[in-house]
Amino acid sequence: MKNEVVEPTTDVAQTAISSKDLLQMWQGHRKLTRRVIEKFPEKELFSFSVAGMRPFSDLAKEMLGMARPGLDGIITRKWDAYSDAKSISSKEELLAKWDETTAYIDENWSKIPTGRFQEDDVAFGQWPGKIYWMMMYFVDNEIHHRGQGYVYLRALGIEPPFFWER
Amino acid sequence: MKNEVVEPTTDVAQTAISSKDLLQMWQGHRKLTRRVIEKFPEKELFSFSVAGMRPFSDLAKEMLGMARPGLDGIITRKWDAYSDAKSISSKEELLAKWDETTAYIDENWSKIPTGRFQEDDVAFGQWPGKIYWMMMYFVDNEIHHRGQGYVYLRALGIEPPFFWER
Repeated sequence: MKNEVVEPTTDVAQTAISSKDLLQMWQGHRKLTRRVIEKFPEKELFSFSVAGMRPFSDLAKEMLGMARPGLDGIITRKWDAYSDAKSISSKEELLAKWDETTAYIDENWSKIPTGRFQEDDVAFGQWPGKIYWMMMYFVDNEIHHRGQGYVYLRALGIEPPFFWER
Repeated sequence: MKNEVVEPTTDVAQTAISSKDLLQMWQGHRKLTRRVIEKFPEKELFSFSVAGMRPFSDLAKEMLGMARPGLDGIITRKWDAYSDAKSISSKEELLAKWDETTAYIDENWSKIPTGRFQEDDVAFGQWPGKIYWMMMYFVDNEIHHRGQGYVYLRALGIEPPFFWER
């Protein structure tokens, strides 16, 4: 720490991230992930990986399997499993599903009840915790797997998109 | 969306994540990253990578180069470059620096001025934006690079830690 006078404010309950800003951040990440999907050649999207890990299509399907049903659970307090994404077998279909989910999130985000982010719940009937934590888990899981996709792209000799472009 | 009656609440300005919760999330991620550093054998930490990317030690040093000086910039509104981390050349030193930064963050987080997260600033004199966005960038960048570290570990035949353990 520098030797400067710092305001002695200690409001740790203050808002760091509002609901509106969280939506924007999530969609920014989803835009970047869409660009990563686009970078993969069709065949490699569904078959290539490093060190026996899952191909990027499977990682993207996992993200889709969390995004819309996760938001539904946050809004309605009822959790369903989600299986739609599993049958996707082409890049075109994956991108179409991605865009459909993007629109769905934008249209439904404002239905999150006030105070909901601080509620305790059990996501998908399995993972107990605060709603804000679950919501961030969906985002963090996407960043984590997308980071793996960057390595796949590099291993394929393909330049990934800039991480800071959203 | 299911056909259920949903509360028509639309407070998108509500707090999704408080300052206190953001601290906890960040430190949770930093704990997991520490575990990833620990998993690497000393030699591979500083030399191994996939597809010509940087070894994980360089990625961890980048995280260190953002964490403490980033928090200092957020607290004081003055931005310095940070070079301490660059000289680290052993796993022990890297972990010691990691722990020192962990303690520093815990001790200083509450000095973030009220309302600061919504202020505009230019991080490190280079990246303009809202403070909450920069703070999340530090976290997201860590998740992103740690995801790459998971691939390195798998390529080395080492089981990475569970992503959800913080």
